[in-house]
Amino acid sequence: MKLGFVGLGTMGRPMAGRLLRAGHAVSVWARRPEAAAPLVEAGAALRASPAEVARHADIVFTIVTYGSDVEAVVFGEHGLAEGFAPGSILVDMSTVAPGLARGLAARLAGRGVHMLDAPVSGGGIGAEAGTLAIMAGGEAAVLERVRPLFAVLGQTLVHVGGNGAGQVAKACNQMVMVAAIEAAAEAMRLAAAAGVDPEKVRRVLAGGSAGSRVLEVFGARMTQRDFAAGVEARLHHKDFGILLAEAHALGLPLPLAAVVGQQLNALMAQGWGGCDTASLLRVLERAGPT
Amino acid sequence: MKLGFVGLGTMGRPMAGRLLRAGHAVSVWARRPEAAAPLVEAGAALRASPAEVARHADIVFTIVTYGSDVEAVVFGEHGLAEGFAPGSILVDMSTVAPGLARGLAARLAGRGVHMLDAPVSGGGIGAEAGTLAIMAGGEAAVLERVRPLFAVLGQTLVHVGGNGAGQVAKACNQMVMVAAIEAAAEAMRLAAAAGVDPEKVRRVLAGGSAGSRVLEVFGARMTQRDFAAGVEARLHHKDFGILLAEAHALGLPLPLAAVVGQQLNALMAQGWGGCDTASLLRVLERAGPT
Repeated sequence: MKLGFVGLGTMGRPMAGRLLRAGHAVSVWARRPEAAAPLVEAGAALRASPAEVARHADIVFTIVTYGSDVEAVVFGEHGLAEGFAPGSILVDMSTVAPGLARGLAARLAGRGVHMLDAPVSGGGIGAEAGTLAIMAGGEAAVLERVRPLFAVLGQTLVHVGGNGAGQVAKACNQMVMVAAIEAAAEAMRLAAAAGVDPEKVRRVLAGGSAGSRVLEVFGARMTQRDFAAGVEARLHHKDFGILLAEAHALGLPLPLAAVVGQQLNALMAQGWGGCDTASLLRVLERAGPT
Repeated sequence: MKLGFVGLGTMGRPMAGRLLRAGHAVSVWARRPEAAAPLVEAGAALRASPAEVARHADIVFTIVTYGSDVEAVVFGEHGLAEGFAPGSILVDMSTVAPGLARGLAARLAGRGVHMLDAPVSGGGIGAEAGTLAIMAGGEAAVLERVRPLFAVLGQTLVHVGGNGAGQVAKACNQMVMVAAIEAAAEAMRLAAAAGVDPEKVRRVLAGGSAGSRVLEVFGARMTQRDFAAGVEARLHHKDFGILLAEAHALGLPLPLAAVVGQQLNALMAQGWGGCDTASLLRVLERAGPT
């Protein structure tokens, strides 16, 4: 299968690498060509623009940071849309607003191009290992064509619904995950303030009903005071903008999400947006008396 | 080993049963003698008062609901304290305030009686299966004497610190767990309001970085609309009283815990205290427009 891949960051680079190693021809484009170098060495074809990628591919994957990035890559000058033949598929794995995903799908449908919104959870480690959870929105028949490729990238694939549904699921995912990080931070802070070893508390919590992947990964970063970014907190902050805008548009009260959003704002205000989201612990420490 | 057990509810009855089946002589007392009947049939000795239980035991376990219950069982008329010989051990597995645990331990120490605070996580299922997580506070030498019995009851045992430290860990546990239930409720609510199947969202979240035991157990109760109590929400509400009082005493800002406490208050105000804490979803539905 002739594939394209645009967006070669922490997530995209290992994902494109897995597709290459699975034996597919992969065309890539990167704003900074050096980001593509390891993939080109491994056999990927570097193209001069997203449009050129689309001309050489039946299915193109995109995974970039902002909604405006997706729009530019797809509909900007020399964008994918210029190169797509009718019947092509765009699989956007970025995390963007559900409404934007629906809008892009509608515009592409007008040109005979199919789209799936298929954001993922599992981080850089999951991208390397091919163990991502993939939340797909779009038509079932389109998803079936992409399914073998998703199997290279992820362990869990759920067809959540029509276009935009994948992004709704991703908003839910980020809410549950970052709320769990904030809860872990409050627990670690309470333990320390009460004179108890946070790492012992973390260990016993992990073995009971409070156990979670967040407690294992982010809780451990907190007790080891390792705030170097696994995932940069600014990305979770961005995702909460999407989530809270969605709740606002629906007129939906989400009190927990609102508080977590404020704590992420406080984290950004402290200048920790480039650090790990475990830094939510440091927000509490700055706010506290001890 | 001669053991005693007081508090034969959802948690205590299966726990006492496991100790009996492990070959120990177990004396029991229950406010309502019928609660003890299945254990007496299995070989436990029913005593006339907590004091009588203490007279026939080297180590006594208690697991009751409120701090006032623990005080009454230990220091009330015909309480355990009247029957304890010096060198006995009280293992209180109730969930009470850390300060109360420290106070009880100090009063018992004056009589030569040792105490551990050892609250648990894992619910009735964990109590039946012997897979509880046990958070122990108290002296290491005392814990070593009880360790073989803890092994009958639980899978995870962490000696968190001195007396009261087990209760601090339990407060942290309840905060993380109920915050995760509220986060799951907000995610399920957002999915439904956005026109997406909540069960599909729950399934894909469980496979990624947001995965947790809460999402598996309470999330499934939400999507199945099964609000019959696994754990009665009024118990979590009680535990949040302990947690927030502890934060207040320490002058510690815990914004997420504060919001979850308010949602539990709303749940109680709706009359769902006897239902499962998955009812936090129903609180959001009552508050919402759709």
